[in-house]
Amino acid sequence: MNAIWLENQHISFRTGLPVPTPGPEEALISVSVAGVCSTDLELLRGYYPYCGIPGHEFVGRVEASPGAPQWIDQRVVGEINITCGVCKPCLDGYPTHCAQRRVLGIRDWHGAFAQYLILPLKNLYLIPESISDEAAVFVEPLAAAMEVLEQVAVSAGQNCLVVGAGRLGQLVAQVLATTGCNLTVVARHPYQQKLLMQRGISCIPEQDVAIGEMDIVIDATGTPSGFHIARKAVRPRGTIVLKSTYAGEMSLNLSSIVVDEITLIGSRCGPFPAAIQLLSSGKVDVSGLVQATFPLEQGVSAFELAAQPGTLKVLINPRAGNGGL
Amino acid sequence: MNAIWLENQHISFRTGLPVPTPGPEEALISVSVAGVCSTDLELLRGYYPYCGIPGHEFVGRVEASPGAPQWIDQRVVGEINITCGVCKPCLDGYPTHCAQRRVLGIRDWHGAFAQYLILPLKNLYLIPESISDEAAVFVEPLAAAMEVLEQVAVSAGQNCLVVGAGRLGQLVAQVLATTGCNLTVVARHPYQQKLLMQRGISCIPEQDVAIGEMDIVIDATGTPSGFHIARKAVRPRGTIVLKSTYAGEMSLNLSSIVVDEITLIGSRCGPFPAAIQLLSSGKVDVSGLVQATFPLEQGVSAFELAAQPGTLKVLINPRAGNGGL
Repeated sequence: MNAIWLENQHISFRTGLPVPTPGPEEALISVSVAGVCSTDLELLRGYYPYCGIPGHEFVGRVEASPGAPQWIDQRVVGEINITCGVCKPCLDGYPTHCAQRRVLGIRDWHGAFAQYLILPLKNLYLIPESISDEAAVFVEPLAAAMEVLEQVAVSAGQNCLVVGAGRLGQLVAQVLATTGCNLTVVARHPYQQKLLMQRGISCIPEQDVAIGEMDIVIDATGTPSGFHIARKAVRPRGTIVLKSTYAGEMSLNLSSIVVDEITLIGSRCGPFPAAIQLLSSGKVDVSGLVQATFPLEQGVSAFELAAQPGTLKVLINPRAGNGGL
Repeated sequence: MNAIWLENQHISFRTGLPVPTPGPEEALISVSVAGVCSTDLELLRGYYPYCGIPGHEFVGRVEASPGAPQWIDQRVVGEINITCGVCKPCLDGYPTHCAQRRVLGIRDWHGAFAQYLILPLKNLYLIPESISDEAAVFVEPLAAAMEVLEQVAVSAGQNCLVVGAGRLGQLVAQVLATTGCNLTVVARHPYQQKLLMQRGISCIPEQDVAIGEMDIVIDATGTPSGFHIARKAVRPRGTIVLKSTYAGEMSLNLSSIVVDEITLIGSRCGPFPAAIQLLSSGKVDVSGLVQATFPLEQGVSAFELAAQPGTLKVLINPRAGNGGL
């Protein structure tokens, strides 16, 4: 099969890779569409020493599922953490933190920038027909955005700020808008502002952020400057949610966190069923968030475009172009 | 009157200072005992550019209260934040974060290492006769320790670790022990361990801290090494409470906080009434925590002793020694 291959901080298009064989509790999935995420770009920069097929945002159809034929032909998305089921985090109910986890396209498990991928059946979620492939591919990042609401009680009237209006920031903003909070987004680029305003969401440039007025701030930038905007904006006893990974170490004034009694919360993967439900309800709309779609052969170009500042979601479609095993 | 004076990172004993005059909503308090806190030592190191009389942990008797004579002769402790009452944090119910606050012995308000101090009447709390002066002087740091329980729901059976068994760590440990949690304390010095074991609290040396097993970790050290022990010990989705200020900036791997979905909570001043109640109940016992008591004239020596690693609480008694206006 064809796939994008990542090795030693270099990606290339490869052909003739073997189609993987699913085990009895796994499914072989034909990838319909996959999305390029900032984590993919960070893998390319060496954030984690992964070697293999990247990609973890996808929608596809089950081609084979030896132990459970009822899955065949179903349209699915998949939880990206492949977990052991027996370690303490698994047994305590937070399996996304499984100590032995492998992660689709990120750690020890081939990902979605390929014609086919394998996932355990327990990772799969059916996608209703009302959700298009181009929307379903957003289930994973939307679930990550919704994780904020699992971690912080956001209520109507609270002052909330989202820092960053790129791929993730747009989703976080739409999710927060469903709570009735008093929402503002720090958006740098005019087209980001336009997308937000189309949804009735207020946005401001970073120089207009007031000091210490926000109850809850979500940093969706993963950059030191984004964090510093968040730190400036949050009120005493307020909460900053760190919704994106940061490259390298960061220097922080922890004493000011103590004196102002700030809460910092790291936030990663989120609830798939809730994200599918929210997409299905129409309360979030991802149709404006796709910048471009590339065939798999052009996956390297897809990465290049996604890496340009301010690019929205770039998709890869393994069924477009030449395809073929 | 006599007092300890801090100026340009230097302290000295001074005589002949004027006794302050209370306003109509203030009290003049004769200080019975005051405690040296790590914050005092940090002020001396230049953590905040304070000039004046330091000291914020005290118990004393009201000598004059022009607007409310019923306070005269009452034995009191005092909330250290002098607040405006009209800013947003004051009106929103977290006055310890008042934007215009002055802080007893820390910011723009003379403190407790003196024969007399002034505080607003609204800051005062009566001390029942069942609590000795040497115990009442712990109300302020005990309240700060209890702030942890205001911020984090600690329940029976949870794995909790306190890093550091000095002045603050001992109080935090005793407070956590009241919850029925599964408590361990990282204690470096044998006498710290002995104090904890006398209370039935388990302690371990830092090299025995297991990785990722703690639901809640309280760093009471205010040092980078203490924070790193806390970070190592906390489980995914666990909570680290930062219970002490840190000198300078600290380098932090924020990505690991995101990936492990850790919550960091800064924690400062706490509830005085709850601390008085807890002391009165006998559920915490501070009698073993006093290392030495110095007369006010020997206040510089008190600071020197308190600054030595592993020293427990050092008290200053303005009524001992020569005294005198």
